[in-house]
Amino acid sequence: MLGRVNHIAIAVPDLKAAAAAYRDTLGAAVSQPQALPEHGVTVVFVELPNTKVELLEPLGEASPVAAFLDKNPSGGMHHICYEVDDIILARDRLVEAGARVLGDGQPKTGAHGKPVLFLHPKDFFGTLIELEQA
Amino acid sequence: MLGRVNHIAIAVPDLKAAAAAYRDTLGAAVSQPQALPEHGVTVVFVELPNTKVELLEPLGEASPVAAFLDKNPSGGMHHICYEVDDIILARDRLVEAGARVLGDGQPKTGAHGKPVLFLHPKDFFGTLIELEQA
Repeated sequence: MLGRVNHIAIAVPDLKAAAAAYRDTLGAAVSQPQALPEHGVTVVFVELPNTKVELLEPLGEASPVAAFLDKNPSGGMHHICYEVDDIILARDRLVEAGARVLGDGQPKTGAHGKPVLFLHPKDFFGTLIELEQA
Repeated sequence: MLGRVNHIAIAVPDLKAAAAAYRDTLGAAVSQPQALPEHGVTVVFVELPNTKVELLEPLGEASPVAAFLDKNPSGGMHHICYEVDDIILARDRLVEAGARVLGDGQPKTGAHGKPVLFLHPKDFFGTLIELEQA
């Protein structure tokens, strides 16, 4: 069921400084910051040869990464996104296996314009998993 | 400088249960557990099309993931490993840029038999970064 790792998301308190560290210190190709107000984040994409890292900074009042940064003020790894062929099939299989889907269980349109779901980190050993229909 | 994401490492308190969740619930191909006493972990490889996830369980008294699990008893994302072409060149560039290499600054032989270094998470917004010579 799990396909490619689409991205690894890292929450950071200072997106400009984090993008500079990945570009200048680590020598990676980084995008310009993109504000995604409907997702409550500003994102910088770090392009690697086989996948990407997404640096996320909270945007607005109800950001999904704000609580994480309250607990981890320096930042940290926030979630892993895996691609799946059919998100409804994946969801139904996961729910049948006893895994909890966050929210109302319906896929939402994610930051890349594709249907996504998040799985409860307690069901996967502390890791927040995002599934994105490829 | 940063090349492929070689792996994403996830520390777990119960490797057997975690491997079963990735295999049976998430439908991924997982390896048999491999004890790596010289690295203080037992590892299960989760093979994805473009990279891999490594599930790590502490092994022995001085495991590098034991303190992480004390702080995060359910488990969690532990580090990201990026490939580099020349680990000495990468280290020298990083040190010149002010980044801190963990330990004595000399590459060690990592779990895949290749030279590796770890970078201080405080220099990279809470993310522990491993570099592995490809």
